[in-house]
Amino acid sequence: MTERIDHTLRGSWTAITGSLPPHALKWLHKRIGVDARTPARSPSVSPSGLGDEARAALAAVVGPGHVRVDRESRLGRAGGLSYLDLLRQRGTGELPAPDGVVLPGSPDEVVAVLRACVEHDVAVVPFGGGTSVVGGVAALRGDKAAVVALDLSRLNRLVEVDPVSRTVVLQAGVTAPRAERLLAPHGFTLGHVPQSYERATIGGFAATRSAGQASSGYGRFEDMVEGLRLATPVGEWRLGAAPASAAGPDLKQLVVGSEGVLGVITEVRLRVRRKPKVERYEGFVLDGWERGQRLVRELAQDRVLADVTRLSDVDETAVSLALSGGWKTAAMKGYLKARQVSEPCLLILGWHGASESEVSRRRADTLRGRRLLSLGRPLGEAWRHGRFNGPRQRDALMEIGVCVETLETAAHWSRISELRAAVRGALKDALGDCVVMCHISHAYETGASLYFTAIAARDVADPVGQWQVAKAAASEAIAGLGTITHHHAVGADHAPYLESEIGGLGVDVLTSVKRTLDPTGVLNPGKLLPGGLASLRDR
Amino acid sequence: MTERIDHTLRGSWTAITGSLPPHALKWLHKRIGVDARTPARSPSVSPSGLGDEARAALAAVVGPGHVRVDRESRLGRAGGLSYLDLLRQRGTGELPAPDGVVLPGSPDEVVAVLRACVEHDVAVVPFGGGTSVVGGVAALRGDKAAVVALDLSRLNRLVEVDPVSRTVVLQAGVTAPRAERLLAPHGFTLGHVPQSYERATIGGFAATRSAGQASSGYGRFEDMVEGLRLATPVGEWRLGAAPASAAGPDLKQLVVGSEGVLGVITEVRLRVRRKPKVERYEGFVLDGWERGQRLVRELAQDRVLADVTRLSDVDETAVSLALSGGWKTAAMKGYLKARQVSEPCLLILGWHGASESEVSRRRADTLRGRRLLSLGRPLGEAWRHGRFNGPRQRDALMEIGVCVETLETAAHWSRISELRAAVRGALKDALGDCVVMCHISHAYETGASLYFTAIAARDVADPVGQWQVAKAAASEAIAGLGTITHHHAVGADHAPYLESEIGGLGVDVLTSVKRTLDPTGVLNPGKLLPGGLASLRDR
Repeated sequence: MTERIDHTLRGSWTAITGSLPPHALKWLHKRIGVDARTPARSPSVSPSGLGDEARAALAAVVGPGHVRVDRESRLGRAGGLSYLDLLRQRGTGELPAPDGVVLPGSPDEVVAVLRACVEHDVAVVPFGGGTSVVGGVAALRGDKAAVVALDLSRLNRLVEVDPVSRTVVLQAGVTAPRAERLLAPHGFTLGHVPQSYERATIGGFAATRSAGQASSGYGRFEDMVEGLRLATPVGEWRLGAAPASAAGPDLKQLVVGSEGVLGVITEVRLRVRRKPKVERYEGFVLDGWERGQRLVRELAQDRVLADVTRLSDVDETAVSLALSGGWKTAAMKGYLKARQVSEPCLLILGWHGASESEVSRRRADTLRGRRLLSLGRPLGEAWRHGRFNGPRQRDALMEIGVCVETLETAAHWSRISELRAAVRGALKDALGDCVVMCHISHAYETGASLYFTAIAARDVADPVGQWQVAKAAASEAIAGLGTITHHHAVGADHAPYLESEIGGLGVDVLTSVKRTLDPTGVLNPGKLLPGGLASLRDR
Repeated sequence: MTERIDHTLRGSWTAITGSLPPHALKWLHKRIGVDARTPARSPSVSPSGLGDEARAALAAVVGPGHVRVDRESRLGRAGGLSYLDLLRQRGTGELPAPDGVVLPGSPDEVVAVLRACVEHDVAVVPFGGGTSVVGGVAALRGDKAAVVALDLSRLNRLVEVDPVSRTVVLQAGVTAPRAERLLAPHGFTLGHVPQSYERATIGGFAATRSAGQASSGYGRFEDMVEGLRLATPVGEWRLGAAPASAAGPDLKQLVVGSEGVLGVITEVRLRVRRKPKVERYEGFVLDGWERGQRLVRELAQDRVLADVTRLSDVDETAVSLALSGGWKTAAMKGYLKARQVSEPCLLILGWHGASESEVSRRRADTLRGRRLLSLGRPLGEAWRHGRFNGPRQRDALMEIGVCVETLETAAHWSRISELRAAVRGALKDALGDCVVMCHISHAYETGASLYFTAIAARDVADPVGQWQVAKAAASEAIAGLGTITHHHAVGADHAPYLESEIGGLGVDVLTSVKRTLDPTGVLNPGKLLPGGLASLRDR
């Protein structure tokens, strides 16, 4: 067995389990030829390089108990949850661990920590739930003498509730479930439910432009951000005077998505909504991807999307049916055949409301005049109950030697099908015998996201290289057709593709902002701006 | 009579008229004591300071016929349409005119013009419809040898239509009515109808974060922006890969609202909607401001706002009734008295849709369970037909010696009434015998805009100072409660208040971006960043 990483510090997931039902194992064997468990090794961690003076300076700010250099603490903040991260945590390849972990207790302490890090030449990786799948929390030190993880878990307060304006101020380290627990007594919800929900934090959502499964109804996280406190090496920056403004560029949108390279988000003022009293989830089926994506587009452009709107392609639908197994699946297949649905694409719709009648009305608005076949509420409820299982299933698949990873993009509607085909083709070419599944989970009037899952037998000789090649092929296929990331963010993994999306001038602009807020470049080296302060081009 | 400014180059307004109906004149005399026409003088314009070499360099880019230095062309781009601008155009105070007018014919020519301006030390004021009411197009030269207005009226094309994604690319100089004419054959509309509609341009909307009268339904202009081309002195910057992205900060939102100080917007990719087949406008009345603002808040928070949602306070409602006059007004007053409405606040709601049934359904959604008194469709239609008359009425009022100006802000709901009272109080203290009216025209889940109109007898001895004192008092009242501007932008007039809203670090960040894109500071001196490149603070 692999060594247990300190996951308790990251949230509330249950321990990793290696069990998959027999029919799923059989299916995997048949489809991608997996047949062996792969051995895991303990990851090696080099000794902490945090100097005594730096450690003392940090301890002077946060207290000695909140600067940790033990192996367990450092391993617990060594990278995120990408497939490559998980491989590294299982002893494959190099796992860069931070030299120490600093746990500040207030926004002011974060500013003081950053100043101490500047003084002692220590790089800082802001660390919330540690759920990045793009290397966003990799413990890279850049050109600094050492690197610490800035664990924000002590910034866990609900600071303010404004029930009239329906805004709240939450600290950056509050996890999504804790946010909901804190808001519930006030009758409010964020409605933000990404797959990382169980561990991810408010600060991380804001720093990465997170989108949740109900973003069609509640909006992307950046749509909820009314104000921010950002700690930087040159002081604190507060933004957010009003719900909307024409007072120059929207600088909140420069901080949202800054991924810890411009500062550390310590508090966020957020728009909240009344917690729904009724939620209704329902499964539908459409015949073929083209019909499915066209329907979702029409719902978006007619502005009658359900709060949750998620369309699986034929392959993802088939895998869902195969993996769930049992008599219900057989019955479903018979039903679809009888209805002459030859290429079933599953559509999950979910409506939230204050009452049954409101939800019924909204459902009627969505479905009015549409041609789609309802598969009933149990299928919708089944999706809802399993909605956070993806990471757990991945852990189980990893244990039996599967290469499994997801990636995502977004594009305008006129390019959606071309983009899907291009990414599928690139992944299949690179991985050979594999399964590639795709769904739309976020729809807009002008376009949508595409979310891919790839499954292949792990290349035991070069498991890291296997995925790196496939990921590069997919990223090249995306460039020019869509965005390199719809909601996973840039981190280290997408950084090489940023310039082709925002232009050389975009990189220059971000670098000049970084130079202003982080003049010595201590903040999150190697993320977003791959060259750090040196990214500014000579002209 | 005042000299006619070259308004034909600015759009399609009919000539300024000085006529007000007799009952309106009588009311004005009674309320604010206006009794005299004030004489207007021709504005004086100093000789053009554009050197021969600069002029030749600009002519080499755009052609000799598109570089103008005649008095008429220069006066036609001398400032915008604020009350102080209009006073200056009538010969009161200094009217800074550009040294020349340059009319580029393509986005590439704009880049080349900027390079020529850098080489010849010429400041550039991007000029669209010239409708700024905050000094955004004042011909200020900063520390440059000369200043030209960069008139974008030749960038007047619809470049691309993507009917599937429902996006279009429009050039910056396209006026709002022309945009609608270009989109109509495709069945689309922007739905963007600010009061400046008849003259204002796509580039101006984007550069100033414009909001239209139907922004509750169609969104603010920045919500429609899917992509941008920005000409800068260091080259062209293109943005906008997808409808949504997590690829770092949203740099589009740094360009939107940049007011010509970071670059010149030359093309904008915009989300469009199906042109509505049915529009229904209706007047309602609520008793008292508090009830009215609470209702609008509930509509916003329940997400059932009409596309147009506009609540007038008691004073604005009374003035509307007084100025419209006639038997209908008398009948209305009788009706309201009979219904025991003691403090009538007019609410205009307007719904757009593809069919009568859709509009009826949306109206039902808005009104379900609400207590408000309908005054019928004629009142709604009357508002709709007069919706662009504000500027014309102001011109008429100016002719008879009235000091008349508007200002606006936005705040979270919990501060709305306090903010309204504070601004009213400040204006009344400063102006003495005056009328101050207010309405909410843009509502959000977390707050709303407040739009004020002040009318007083002009101080003949110091007309400019009279308004400057009042405006400063209102701006001081706003600071700390709301934003200095909800949709009028910053320009020169609000620039002194920007730092208190975005912080010293915000000014530093914007300045560092300007330094990257406009290293010699030729772009729109004196706007947004009052200190230009020197705004970056020493620390």
